[in-house]
Amino acid sequence: MIDTLISKIKELHNPTVVGLDPRLNMVPEHIKQKAYEENGGKTLEGAAAAFLAFNKAIIDATYDLIPAVKPQIAMYEAYGVPGIQAFAETVAYAKSKGLVVIGDIKRNDIASTAQAYSDGHIGVANVDGNEIVPFDEDFITVNPYLGTDSIEPYYENMRNRNKGLFVLVKTSNPGSGELQDLPMADGQPLYETVGKLVDRWGEPFRGEYGFSDVGAVVGATHPEQGKRLRELLPHVFFLVPGYGAQGGTAEDLAGCFNKDGIGAIVNSSRGIIAAYKSAKYQNQFSPEEFAQASRQAVLDMKADLNRVI
Amino acid sequence: MIDTLISKIKELHNPTVVGLDPRLNMVPEHIKQKAYEENGGKTLEGAAAAFLAFNKAIIDATYDLIPAVKPQIAMYEAYGVPGIQAFAETVAYAKSKGLVVIGDIKRNDIASTAQAYSDGHIGVANVDGNEIVPFDEDFITVNPYLGTDSIEPYYENMRNRNKGLFVLVKTSNPGSGELQDLPMADGQPLYETVGKLVDRWGEPFRGEYGFSDVGAVVGATHPEQGKRLRELLPHVFFLVPGYGAQGGTAEDLAGCFNKDGIGAIVNSSRGIIAAYKSAKYQNQFSPEEFAQASRQAVLDMKADLNRVI
Repeated sequence: MIDTLISKIKELHNPTVVGLDPRLNMVPEHIKQKAYEENGGKTLEGAAAAFLAFNKAIIDATYDLIPAVKPQIAMYEAYGVPGIQAFAETVAYAKSKGLVVIGDIKRNDIASTAQAYSDGHIGVANVDGNEIVPFDEDFITVNPYLGTDSIEPYYENMRNRNKGLFVLVKTSNPGSGELQDLPMADGQPLYETVGKLVDRWGEPFRGEYGFSDVGAVVGATHPEQGKRLRELLPHVFFLVPGYGAQGGTAEDLAGCFNKDGIGAIVNSSRGIIAAYKSAKYQNQFSPEEFAQASRQAVLDMKADLNRVI
Repeated sequence: MIDTLISKIKELHNPTVVGLDPRLNMVPEHIKQKAYEENGGKTLEGAAAAFLAFNKAIIDATYDLIPAVKPQIAMYEAYGVPGIQAFAETVAYAKSKGLVVIGDIKRNDIASTAQAYSDGHIGVANVDGNEIVPFDEDFITVNPYLGTDSIEPYYENMRNRNKGLFVLVKTSNPGSGELQDLPMADGQPLYETVGKLVDRWGEPFRGEYGFSDVGAVVGATHPEQGKRLRELLPHVFFLVPGYGAQGGTAEDLAGCFNKDGIGAIVNSSRGIIAAYKSAKYQNQFSPEEFAQASRQAVLDMKADLNRVI
């Protein structure tokens, strides 16, 4: 799946992934009112319907410009079962438009349980012989804290169903260094130890561009560490959160790319999906034009990234 | 919530938590056939209905003996949205029987996203002023890799809604040591560093028994490390997986308890919920008597634990 992603990035000259992390205060009133009216009022179902309509309009307005979307499942899970339903339908809709879907689920557990996450998100449910695909993202994000035997359960689905992982290495939050930067006995920080494991996990999954289906999450908010990891892990593709609303600039994340401009995909969530509410775009786009504002924000982000890579 | 849990453990003389981690091959045929018939065949809905019926029967047969249940969300998530619905209904049913519910979800993310998990699982969804409770577990398990600012978003719901956390410190899988046991520059293993953070996070949440609402996951499969952590973290209550099917014995986990027999709650999943299929119980209980087999397995586990603590 990494080859598919990189091919799309090259074709579109755009390493932007749109983070579909909706919140109700981002969804324009006219979308919410319709969703509430059709779902018994201000219910979980109403919130979920608002998210889905919002996402679909943004996908419709941007899918020809971007290689991928990254729905953050927590935003949906916060609205219970109907929220998860909207997540599943968002994944399906994005795929129907030809987008690569990165499920930002940050799951993981011991092997037998990791297998259940693997089957649910990138695999198949077997109901006594009847095979059904539950969620079907193309990539998912996973947490490394449990080690290699918690990653292996994803391999079979990666191999058989052309799927991939992004493993948390250095996250974008201000406090990420508290554990991730701690020096180990051998002198290297924990995130480098994890990064090297990710490289090893990906060895059997390297594709035509030299990158593997086991990528790493590397926050844009840590420029020096991103650059260092890019040098250390030439076969590991980076998913880079933290651009825009979290404070990361194009210059900050330039080091996550190789000289040929490949090596990372950069996420923006709020900056794109809530563009119509931002100081930059609010005078240009009305709430009714929110999706067009998102399109403009994608074009501007693409230009900003291409300026430095 | 830790006080509620400890009170129930004392009252029942039983630190056993039943892991509600169903798999279809554990569910007796008569339960599955009925669930499939009523849900359009071997569908995700059929699997989910089978899980729910199975769980309810086990809860009915054991709730007077145990303080808590721990549904593992991955087992439900593997069956998509209907699976998550069965998870939600399992949580609600267990609570209706007076059980403490530990949602084994192992979530976490950057602060804004952690807030969404917090609101979804131990908090409230606010749909434009209308407050609805989505899942409502009493405790949830969370991953520490992102540090303190990823834990803080749970505090408000813990405080206002009497909830708690169990943070992964030393997990029960065979490969847990690959990262968790690595020595840091200061000589201590990573899991101890994490354990000390957990202690700090819990300081403002200590209750009448001296334990805090921020507990730790400490696998039964690592006896020496469990004992060491018990000494190091006198205010941190342990959730101990790994007993039984994963190989941990009562002797292995005895060190997770204080001399007064308090300090941990021990999970068993397969060993209880699939007891009727085990060598130990299969001659005594038919598949129709699966729930009674689970009851006997709880009684036997209680006796086994009380033998050593």
